[in-house]
Amino acid sequence: MATHEVGAGGAAAPGSRITITEIARQAGVSVPTVSRVVNGRSDVSPKTRARVEELLQLHGYRKRPTSSGTGAALLDLVFNDLDSPWAVEIIRGVEEVAHATGVGTVVSAIHGRSGDAREWMRNLRARASDGVILVTSDLEPVLHEELRILGVPLVVVDPAGSPALDAPTIGAANWSGGMAATEHLLSLGHRRIALIAGPPRLLCSRARFDGYRAALEGAGLGVDDSLVVPGDFHPESGFDGCNALLDLPEPPTAIFAASDQMALGAIEALRQRGLRVPEDMSLVGFDDLPEVRWSAPPLTTVRQPLAEMGKLAVRTVLRLARDEQPDSPRVELGTELVVRASTAPLAR
Amino acid sequence: MATHEVGAGGAAAPGSRITITEIARQAGVSVPTVSRVVNGRSDVSPKTRARVEELLQLHGYRKRPTSSGTGAALLDLVFNDLDSPWAVEIIRGVEEVAHATGVGTVVSAIHGRSGDAREWMRNLRARASDGVILVTSDLEPVLHEELRILGVPLVVVDPAGSPALDAPTIGAANWSGGMAATEHLLSLGHRRIALIAGPPRLLCSRARFDGYRAALEGAGLGVDDSLVVPGDFHPESGFDGCNALLDLPEPPTAIFAASDQMALGAIEALRQRGLRVPEDMSLVGFDDLPEVRWSAPPLTTVRQPLAEMGKLAVRTVLRLARDEQPDSPRVELGTELVVRASTAPLAR
Repeated sequence: MATHEVGAGGAAAPGSRITITEIARQAGVSVPTVSRVVNGRSDVSPKTRARVEELLQLHGYRKRPTSSGTGAALLDLVFNDLDSPWAVEIIRGVEEVAHATGVGTVVSAIHGRSGDAREWMRNLRARASDGVILVTSDLEPVLHEELRILGVPLVVVDPAGSPALDAPTIGAANWSGGMAATEHLLSLGHRRIALIAGPPRLLCSRARFDGYRAALEGAGLGVDDSLVVPGDFHPESGFDGCNALLDLPEPPTAIFAASDQMALGAIEALRQRGLRVPEDMSLVGFDDLPEVRWSAPPLTTVRQPLAEMGKLAVRTVLRLARDEQPDSPRVELGTELVVRASTAPLAR
Repeated sequence: MATHEVGAGGAAAPGSRITITEIARQAGVSVPTVSRVVNGRSDVSPKTRARVEELLQLHGYRKRPTSSGTGAALLDLVFNDLDSPWAVEIIRGVEEVAHATGVGTVVSAIHGRSGDAREWMRNLRARASDGVILVTSDLEPVLHEELRILGVPLVVVDPAGSPALDAPTIGAANWSGGMAATEHLLSLGHRRIALIAGPPRLLCSRARFDGYRAALEGAGLGVDDSLVVPGDFHPESGFDGCNALLDLPEPPTAIFAASDQMALGAIEALRQRGLRVPEDMSLVGFDDLPEVRWSAPPLTTVRQPLAEMGKLAVRTVLRLARDEQPDSPRVELGTELVVRASTAPLAR
């Protein structure tokens, strides 16, 4: 019997030219069932297992190397970019728990580029990682499928898109945080409250925006579209957004910036125009990065427990690696308003 | 012949109770020679190799597992702490080069604690890391010895202490940077120039201080001890140091803070007293972290090429792993004064 070599279509199995999809087709079972057999799971009938194993052997399918032989546990922590102090907070939490349990943390950045993601996937297979923590990263569906077939446990931190993935997600209470920031400004008497928003493709941006809207509506106000400007979470966009708001015929008296870094950019835009924070403009950020304790002035912001999110992600991925279920597939850790010196009552 | 089980003294060999020191004693050769045999190096005479290998076999000494079988290359990037935006800059550089060459970057923090360092060393052995990059970290001598015996290539970035280690070091031109910062302030007419210094146990702090002194002496001035206050590179110490300087009977007109984070703390101390930067006080930092482009005002600072230092460290450790020599055992990458908005001519 000739070996079926399947080229395009379906994820390629490591060390073989046959795909799991093709094995599943030949065995007349689903891809997840083949995956369960490959990864030695018990929830497969003996008869099905025998048929699948026969096909796997016939086609010389080899499963990924496993670290269990050497006892060298590793997990992969994957960012889109390592260009923000935000990332080091997550790394700190992940490393702390991983280190304490003897697990090494492999940090990678895939820059939203397909080539980098594929390169990372190749390395992941070679190093037999015991789990993957993906931070605000979009992986192509084909790579998701490959991860799933490899049987590497996956946890997503701060999910970028809708939770279509068959993986637990860990986020922050972004909606509540957006509401708390806006309610704080309302309680100080502000009514013209602007938003420098995050990228709308990210779930966290949409949740913060909706929390902002909910607080305004709770105060009997609606969203004034002219007071919502786009940003990308980086300081430059906060600088530009703040300038756009200050150029309005009737500028806002307060700004909620959906990230601390955008708030820092806004402070600089205000400073360049000779405007003082909080006397001339109240400003709330989002994240509570360590350095905004030391911005001028220290920033009122919404604390997002980044290190704790990292810690929980490690615990969850290690549970999955032991074939245990997470307590909940979707966890949101609480956010908290931290009032410092960048907000003040509306001057009348 | 009974097995010699050696307890205290000398580094313990992995998976064995005999130490390399004891093997060397019995073979009548040096510890480095035993290490070369263990690591399969060719620069040992056949006769010596045979004698050492016999003893190693007799005592059941096992060398660390190696990754060459699986092709899963890893390197270990070790910090004292992951509590600063400084760390993410180094990680970014290391990850970029490592990722591109298919090497995974395992990030660890040992918190200057002996227990954490030993735990890390155990994990390092288990995961068969191909190289170690140590960042401003003091390892106990016994752990250094153990690394050396394991034959894992080591590169030290921003060496903490005197380069006693038999390992290449990569640093920044701290002395030149300290001199450039101080000369910039002198060129603006300042004469009472204070220094918020880094921890004196770190080489980089001592070099920045000496550069400060050299610039003052070049201008015919000496160091006024009352204008030098201690710091630990964190913002709190910059805040405290700046307050101490402002409480002097005759405060300085300019401050060189030996880290950006201390400069941010100093800006906040000035702001709380209603003093403006740069009108009332000129301020220069050191590092050029991405966020000081967005401090209020944007900080004049000395750029330290942290990501580039990380990149060079990876290239160096991979050269060592291939048994090649680094171009130079001590490399200092250039620093550069970046003039922004926190410095101004002395008001007369």
